[in-house]
Amino acid sequence: MAILHSYPFCPQSRFARLVLAELGVEPSVVEEKPWERRLPFLEINPGGNLPLFIDDDGLAVPGALIIAEYMDDTRGDTLRDRRFLPRDIAERVEVRRLLDWFLVKFHAEVSDYLATEKIYKRFMPTELGGGSPDMGAIRAARTNVRYHLKYIGYLIATRNWLAGDRMTYADLAAAAHLSVVDYLGDVPWDENETAKHWYARIKSRPSFRALLAERVPGMAPAEHYDNLDF
Amino acid sequence: MAILHSYPFCPQSRFARLVLAELGVEPSVVEEKPWERRLPFLEINPGGNLPLFIDDDGLAVPGALIIAEYMDDTRGDTLRDRRFLPRDIAERVEVRRLLDWFLVKFHAEVSDYLATEKIYKRFMPTELGGGSPDMGAIRAARTNVRYHLKYIGYLIATRNWLAGDRMTYADLAAAAHLSVVDYLGDVPWDENETAKHWYARIKSRPSFRALLAERVPGMAPAEHYDNLDF
Repeated sequence: MAILHSYPFCPQSRFARLVLAELGVEPSVVEEKPWERRLPFLEINPGGNLPLFIDDDGLAVPGALIIAEYMDDTRGDTLRDRRFLPRDIAERVEVRRLLDWFLVKFHAEVSDYLATEKIYKRFMPTELGGGSPDMGAIRAARTNVRYHLKYIGYLIATRNWLAGDRMTYADLAAAAHLSVVDYLGDVPWDENETAKHWYARIKSRPSFRALLAERVPGMAPAEHYDNLDF
Repeated sequence: MAILHSYPFCPQSRFARLVLAELGVEPSVVEEKPWERRLPFLEINPGGNLPLFIDDDGLAVPGALIIAEYMDDTRGDTLRDRRFLPRDIAERVEVRRLLDWFLVKFHAEVSDYLATEKIYKRFMPTELGGGSPDMGAIRAARTNVRYHLKYIGYLIATRNWLAGDRMTYADLAAAAHLSVVDYLGDVPWDENETAKHWYARIKSRPSFRALLAERVPGMAPAEHYDNLDF
């Protein structure tokens, strides 16, 4: 049976979980605390990053982007219209451009700061960096998210989904990362109705249910977090 | 005609240049200073990152990894044994894992620090961050590179090339990034003979010649930089 090593509020793990759920793959999910750097985990994944997918044959596939590529390599041809990395060359470039935008740029500028400062640090031992959040990092992330929200609105104003007419990995990546920021109440949805409607569409998908049901122990989500008509 | 927007000592640009040279693609190369964030450049590449490849049809392909994937999508099937992202699923995962290792991890821990502090800052205007190098960042990079060199040696001890029996994108990515560090004399080759021999093999390839001929104005390379039997 396939296994997904992941952490509930790790945005990269959430992207992989959405991809797997959309494709009907139901791995056994194992929680891995990213800051622990456990030796048995590093032995199968020297980079130590999350998520890590182990397929039915025991092949270890590390990292959100590589898992997405692996799923396309192994299942893409049979998915036809539901393929999240389309066959057309220009569309593939656009999906990968936006995947990079959200998995790397948005992560570095917004979701990694907020997940680390507001969530991870509550559970990390002090000697590994746990403790009170760095307010400077949180403020920077809150400023940066506005620019990304605007970019989503700009794209959706001319397209049905982020990368074009159909839903792709780009939408799942953006929504996965935003879902963590949204739990914390840090997405200024009022500033962009177009982006908000796009997110409401994705959030209503069955693949999103498991994410919306999760809670950070001792920390309630923003009021609208699991409201599908927010 | 295809165009590559790149910067001479940008390690990500060097990876794309090696890939294109190995595949016999000869774009017209346009220098783009990464810190300038020129508007006409951002219009075709909103992320502003280098390199940017424009194919014969005018399709803009941004970023080293996406260019590598694009080349495999468009030419992979015809390359047979010279394919740098092999067909086999487990091999694809391994090549992508190491691509991520060098393009993301090595970049963040070593080559970005050194290229920025020692090269870019000499040419950047003060208001954009130019000036004297941050010695703390340089020291950190010099410490980190030793661990990466050890990892290369560890992989090459059991394999012919980084990801397996044949040369792949993984070797080109690692060598491209190391070439910038090597120019600066910051690779402690004496610490790992196995890694050194692997680098000497790659460095002798015709695709590497253009990189070895380049000079940073006003800054000589390490003595052994363009010596193929260093």
